[in-house]
Amino acid sequence: MNDLLAYFEQELPAVNAFLEAETGKLDGLVRDVARYVLLGGGKRIRPVLTILTARALGFRQDGVTPLACSLEMLHSATLIHDDILDGADLRRGRAAAHLTFGQTETILAGDVLLALANRLGADYGIPRINSLLAEGIMSTASGEILEIAHCAKPRPDRAAYMAIIVGKTARLIETACRCGAALASPERSLEDAAGDYGLNVGIAFQLVDDALDYLADQSDLGKPAGGDLREGKITWPLILFLEEEPDGAEVLARLAARDLDEAFQREVVGRVCAKGYADRTRAEAAAYVGRAKRALEALPGCREREILSQAADFVLARRK
Amino acid sequence: MNDLLAYFEQELPAVNAFLEAETGKLDGLVRDVARYVLLGGGKRIRPVLTILTARALGFRQDGVTPLACSLEMLHSATLIHDDILDGADLRRGRAAAHLTFGQTETILAGDVLLALANRLGADYGIPRINSLLAEGIMSTASGEILEIAHCAKPRPDRAAYMAIIVGKTARLIETACRCGAALASPERSLEDAAGDYGLNVGIAFQLVDDALDYLADQSDLGKPAGGDLREGKITWPLILFLEEEPDGAEVLARLAARDLDEAFQREVVGRVCAKGYADRTRAEAAAYVGRAKRALEALPGCREREILSQAADFVLARRK
Repeated sequence: MNDLLAYFEQELPAVNAFLEAETGKLDGLVRDVARYVLLGGGKRIRPVLTILTARALGFRQDGVTPLACSLEMLHSATLIHDDILDGADLRRGRAAAHLTFGQTETILAGDVLLALANRLGADYGIPRINSLLAEGIMSTASGEILEIAHCAKPRPDRAAYMAIIVGKTARLIETACRCGAALASPERSLEDAAGDYGLNVGIAFQLVDDALDYLADQSDLGKPAGGDLREGKITWPLILFLEEEPDGAEVLARLAARDLDEAFQREVVGRVCAKGYADRTRAEAAAYVGRAKRALEALPGCREREILSQAADFVLARRK
Repeated sequence: MNDLLAYFEQELPAVNAFLEAETGKLDGLVRDVARYVLLGGGKRIRPVLTILTARALGFRQDGVTPLACSLEMLHSATLIHDDILDGADLRRGRAAAHLTFGQTETILAGDVLLALANRLGADYGIPRINSLLAEGIMSTASGEILEIAHCAKPRPDRAAYMAIIVGKTARLIETACRCGAALASPERSLEDAAGDYGLNVGIAFQLVDDALDYLADQSDLGKPAGGDLREGKITWPLILFLEEEPDGAEVLARLAARDLDEAFQREVVGRVCAKGYADRTRAEAAAYVGRAKRALEALPGCREREILSQAADFVLARRK
């Protein structure tokens, strides 16, 4: 795991400097929003995955940073639009952008970041990269669409849940890995292997996120526990709860009727943790991490492949 | 002008069929919004300009339709996001999308249309096209940003007005022309000429639009007259009014204080028309149409160049 941390330490200064410089060039009204969301936090998982896959597939030149940053921009753009859609108050432990800067500025900042990401991608002169970025945005929006539709008619549906998290989270992580691969090589089978790794890491990442949402009081997530439940989102820990608890049908009916007072929400969150549903969600994530690591076997053996493997393990281990 | 109308009649069925097919593939929640805005109206100026410039520069193959439609998608995406930002009630004589489908669906539909446009562009395998699309979106967002900032501190400022309409309107029309050129030829000087034409046509288009906003009661614009004034937008007709009317400073002060009751708004709109400020705005537009037509001289003589020239004239003549 030390290699992974060292890699982040090695690459993040260039990523952060580029984000700082590019957002500094934006027009006033959206510059502040863009800097607030891009420079105020974020684990930089997507850009580092882009760098790692490019390097793992032999890309030794300079110049991967703009592509890596375009993934972080896409991610931030979808986050700030989603926070408007979800009416979210908090993001990374701070007030959400639309509450700090206003909805107008935030919608525009999202549009500008989407466009800037596409322009940075286009600058490489590799059409495949723009196709990947566009597909990544469409998948992310589709995931959000599915989630909204699903919240309107909540039910414990494993397939629907998977479609949502693949769209909302995993596809963009897959995109980050595919972009790094496409930069390094036109060989589609290598890109597919990198994408397979990213997709499975992304699913594992979201499963862990969903577990941590229930475990938040015991972690350092920067937001209160049970946020998903409050928003009517049925994530994996709650699916297990609804399927297995004797009063699952009753809880589901109250969820569908939006009849969950705060005390009852707290009770459900407590029971999800106490009965091990959050921990079982982590165990599910471990299976996806295994698939991600098997996908790496198609890549040439090298230091970066080893670090990608560590990154998959780290997704499981994280507490925030 | 008959050639122009015939060209629209010739090309629009393929454009509309493609938009119909592509929007039909979208996810349910945004599909309805996308179809409402893309199939429910629109003059299709941008796609037809893309087709005309590609053909004028010798692109004789099939396959220009997706690129042309990507411009209409970008345009629609920025429109529906702008209508949220502006709190607009009407668009093309119907309820704005966000009032019909909800804000969430409309933000997402805009994001999906932006991504779909980029994907259609990327499918050509010509990186320049993606750079142009990305720059077009960024300029459009910048124009909106400038306009919002300007509305907060209204003043008759010709340079600020020009920067706003270039960003909001003219750059995307320039982009439509540049994309057609880039599809036909890698020769940058030809693309620049096409872009010069598009930029000037776009400025003329917006000046006429701003004149028509005051003349709406005498036209068939599908919205009530004076909408710009109500929204606090200082467009060219009002700049002339504020500069030349004896009570211009007083009107500006009331505008800045948001102290314009409906009767006074009506009075200002009536005076802008009666004193010829709207007509003088059209005359200003005529100068840009002249520049657009001169830019066409760099293109090879052909039927499509002639139709582009007619299109520039048509921008001036339109009443809605």
